[in-house]
Amino acid sequence: MNNFKKAGVADGARSELHEVLGLTGAEISVNTLPAGASVPFVHSHKQNEEIYAILEGEGTAVIDGKRVGLKSGDWIKISPSAKRQFFASDKIGLKFICIQVKENSLEGYTMTDAVVY
Amino acid sequence: MNNFKKAGVADGARSELHEVLGLTGAEISVNTLPAGASVPFVHSHKQNEEIYAILEGEGTAVIDGKRVGLKSGDWIKISPSAKRQFFASDKIGLKFICIQVKENSLEGYTMTDAVVY
Repeated sequence: MNNFKKAGVADGARSELHEVLGLTGAEISVNTLPAGASVPFVHSHKQNEEIYAILEGEGTAVIDGKRVGLKSGDWIKISPSAKRQFFASDKIGLKFICIQVKENSLEGYTMTDAVVY
Repeated sequence: MNNFKKAGVADGARSELHEVLGLTGAEISVNTLPAGASVPFVHSHKQNEEIYAILEGEGTAVIDGKRVGLKSGDWIKISPSAKRQFFASDKIGLKFICIQVKENSLEGYTMTDAVVY
């Protein structure tokens, strides 16, 4: 059993990586909304913090009723209880990554968790 | 206090998002290696699973001595104990995201953690 797993993600509406990569600390999806489209529901989470990265395009997030503009290079952290919905702009689609992790689960990181050889 | 936090990430050698976004379940960095460059050390982790996403360019990861080719759209999960080092190709740089999460920390996700309105 290798200590790593690799997968290529093709363009598509949504790719979920938890099973594909055997993730144990996160679920990650790669999502594309065509121009004028939206995620078709509002949602929040019980335990999970979500982190969104905008890869391409433009759009809007509505988070607890507040409109937040989105463009390539933007990152957003959303706390579990916030009610959220994502929309592509009317003129250009929106490609984004969504990372789910359990809130407050991280202990050490980078130099406090790494072993450097 | 808002239930979310947004930041734009400019191009640069490395941007670390833990403090910028107030992350509690992950550390995330956005990294660029110029053509011919590499992360200057081999490392592993004590507790953290790492997930890498290749955003642009080409390169190679060496993971426990095994060479793994990298190109845009590739994702790799690496277990904590694996010794890893990342290299850009000689001809083109490598832009990638690195996500650190605590191994085995995720409980429910997507439909088992979401509340849909």
